[in-house]
Amino acid sequence: MSIRLPVEKLTPEAFAPFGTVIAPDPARAKSINGGTTTRFHALATCEALGTDAEVIINIFRGSPRRFPYQVDMMERHPLGSQSFSPLSPRPFLVVVAEDHGGTPAKPRVFLAENGEGINYRANVWHHPLMALGETSDFLVVDRGGPGDNLEEYIYPALFTIEEIDL
Amino acid sequence: MSIRLPVEKLTPEAFAPFGTVIAPDPARAKSINGGTTTRFHALATCEALGTDAEVIINIFRGSPRRFPYQVDMMERHPLGSQSFSPLSPRPFLVVVAEDHGGTPAKPRVFLAENGEGINYRANVWHHPLMALGETSDFLVVDRGGPGDNLEEYIYPALFTIEEIDL
Repeated sequence: MSIRLPVEKLTPEAFAPFGTVIAPDPARAKSINGGTTTRFHALATCEALGTDAEVIINIFRGSPRRFPYQVDMMERHPLGSQSFSPLSPRPFLVVVAEDHGGTPAKPRVFLAENGEGINYRANVWHHPLMALGETSDFLVVDRGGPGDNLEEYIYPALFTIEEIDL
Repeated sequence: MSIRLPVEKLTPEAFAPFGTVIAPDPARAKSINGGTTTRFHALATCEALGTDAEVIINIFRGSPRRFPYQVDMMERHPLGSQSFSPLSPRPFLVVVAEDHGGTPAKPRVFLAENGEGINYRANVWHHPLMALGETSDFLVVDRGGPGDNLEEYIYPALFTIEEIDL
C-alpha cells in the first residue's frame, strides 16, 4: 500500500511555505555595472544559526533517481537554510513537507525546470537531492559550523512518485 | 599607450591571494544521502560584515564583453565576499588585483572554464563581471544589508585584454 504523490509546478506562491524559488524574477531586476549586467537581487536569504556558524558554498553531484520512486523518509536542518541551483539545464525534483507537531506531513513534489533553483528555509522538511535523467551538479549554499544540524524522519507508510514526464 | 594583460589559467594556487575557486575538487568530496550524492564540501566561505548584514543569493545576467577590452577601473566590497558561478557552460574572465596601500595594483586576468566559479574575499579588488561570447547567467552569493559596501578606483593608465582565444 503506497500513496501516490502528484507532481506540482514550482511557483513562488506554491513554494512559499517552504522557502523561495531562485530564478531571474523581473520584479527583482536592476541594471548595474554601467548597464552591462542585470542583477536579480536577493532571490534568497541564507540562514546560519548558532555559535561559530557560517554560510558555505558547496557543489552536490547527484545520481539520477529511478521511477516509480518510493519516498520513505525526510530530513531537515534546524540550524540553517539550504539552497540548490542546478549547474546544468536538467530539471530536478523538490520534495518537501509541512511540519505537523515535529514530524513531516504528507510530501509535496515540485518539478524545478529551466534552471530554477530553490532555497529551503531552516527547519523545513525535505527529501535528499533528487536529480533526474543524468548525474547532475548543483551549487548548494548552506550552513557550516559546530552543532547538530540534521534531523531525519522515517515515514510509517510509503509514498510513490510515478514516472516523471519530461 | 596601454599595457597588455596576459590571460592566466585559473588554478586554486594562482587565485589564492584573491579568494577560492568553486569547482568539484576531489579532495573535498564525501558521499552523502545513502551514496546517491557526492558533496564537495565548503568550497568557499561567505563573509558578511557589519550590523544587520546577511548572505544573499542573486542571479547576475552579464552581457558579453568585446575585445580588445580596455580595463580602466576596479571595485571592491569591504564588507563582504562575492562569489560567481556560471549557470551555463560558457567561460568568463576573472580580473583581480592585489591592494597596494589602498589602490589596486596591475590587474591579473584569469580564464574560468568548464563551469569553474570563484569567490572573492571581502575587500579584494576586482573588475565587474566579464561574460564571454553570449549573455550569460551567474549565481552570485554576496552580502546584503546597510552600510557602504562599494569602493571604486579609476586607473590613471589603461590596460588591454586582447582577443580571447576560446
